Amino acid sequence: MTYCVGLRLNKGLVFMSDTRTNAGVDNFSVTKKMFTWNVPGERVITLMTAGNLATTQALVSLLDERSKVVAERNPTLLELPTMFEIARLVGSTLKEVISDSRPDGLEASSSFKASVILGGQVKGGGATMFMIYPEGNFIEITDDNPFFQIGEAKYGKPILVRAYDPEMSFEDTIKLLLVSFDSTIKANLSVGLPLDLQVYAKDSFEVIERPRIESGDKYYQAVSSGWGDALRNALAQLPGYELK
Amino acid sequence: MTYCVGLRLNKGLVFMSDTRTNAGVDNFSVTKKMFTWNVPGERVITLMTAGNLATTQALVSLLDERSKVVAERNPTLLELPTMFEIARLVGSTLKEVISDSRPDGLEASSSFKASVILGGQVKGGGATMFMIYPEGNFIEITDDNPFFQIGEAKYGKPILVRAYDPEMSFEDTIKLLLVSFDSTIKANLSVGLPLDLQVYAKDSFEVIERPRIESGDKYYQAVSSGWGDALRNALAQLPGYELK
Repeated sequence: MTYCVGLRLNKGLVFMSDTRTNAGVDNFSVTKKMFTWNVPGERVITLMTAGNLATTQALVSLLDERSKVVAERNPTLLELPTMFEIARLVGSTLKEVISDSRPDGLEASSSFKASVILGGQVKGGGATMFMIYPEGNFIEITDDNPFFQIGEAKYGKPILVRAYDPEMSFEDTIKLLLVSFDSTIKANLSVGLPLDLQVYAKDSFEVIERPRIESGDKYYQAVSSGWGDALRNALAQLPGYELK
Repeated sequence: MTYCVGLRLNKGLVFMSDTRTNAGVDNFSVTKKMFTWNVPGERVITLMTAGNLATTQALVSLLDERSKVVAERNPTLLELPTMFEIARLVGSTLKEVISDSRPDGLEASSSFKASVILGGQVKGGGATMFMIYPEGNFIEITDDNPFFQIGEAKYGKPILVRAYDPEMSFEDTIKLLLVSFDSTIKANLSVGLPLDLQVYAKDSFEVIERPRIESGDKYYQAVSSGWGDALRNALAQLPGYELK
């Protein structure tokens, strides 16, 4: 499995993904699930993937290849005029990859499925985010539904539901996401460190490379070990039940 | 779905279950999932069920019927000498019900499956708890694994992992369980109020009936509305991330 979260704030977009892939419990490794394309000053596009690794790697490679070919007939990730058009392109490419993997004459296997969170900004439009399904269709982020999760989403959802605020700073959002990831990592072996992080400030059209958050990261460790105490304090704040 | 938790403390056992059953999203209702048998001064047995409703109702009815027949050849829930023997009886009855539901000549459908948390105490033994699988086998609670969850367990697990302590009072445990249930109810439509609660004080061999925790319950509402603030305060306690 996988755990990725994309959040929209008033200030911009924040993405976080884990890096564990596994087939069973023996065969696991570290794989990047976050990919970014950037035309400085003009567009930033970030993609996070969950699902069959062959499918997601093929998707990213195809999108990447096509954006490098000089005389492509169709506009690519780096040329399409809006995020909506880019979401359509990613969706149709994803559908194409999944359908190519289907054995001839058989029904599509669910095991080739993958989901994608796509976010970014193209000059002339706003910073936005999409959740793209294996069927190639997608939904856009809204004020009522201001974050997307893919993969092992359940453990880390309650804290996001409770603590998300569109006015949050990037720093507080990263803290919140680390708590959500730490809760998931503590509960599920298929999600693991290191974590990839990307913060996109609205209208900046630039990507700031950030180091991976490794298991030895001091800040991650402080959040992980401090959260237990913080939660117990939070419980202690609540009124006590009275047993009759 | 369902959400049930059984916890072992040094002081005794605590059980909580929701009451929502649903087939799809249209057909939902309130159903009791917690059942208790008591021989005052001698034994207390509590059972919580998750899974196919026809299976779990048949299981409880069979266990109940057999314990009322006067001249049963085999000892029943109310006569078996240890909790271990009772777990074996519940396991074999569960397996029998599931296998009876299987259409002739077909493989067993997973949709008749059910899981059970069984806890209690029989005079001469300690207070203990078992998780019983559809196959009829089971595991016993240990110090390393001091609580069992069945049903929609993921949302409410992180808080249990972080805040459980065997030395907790019953009052604090109920508060903790309500937070775990509230996190689940806020995230998943298939788990819903009212909640059933049972607290068993070790070596008491008595059942204290408690009212259902309904959606209008003042204490539940205080925990539910207070938890958001408490969590935000907990996050604020953690050190801040420094964006470079």
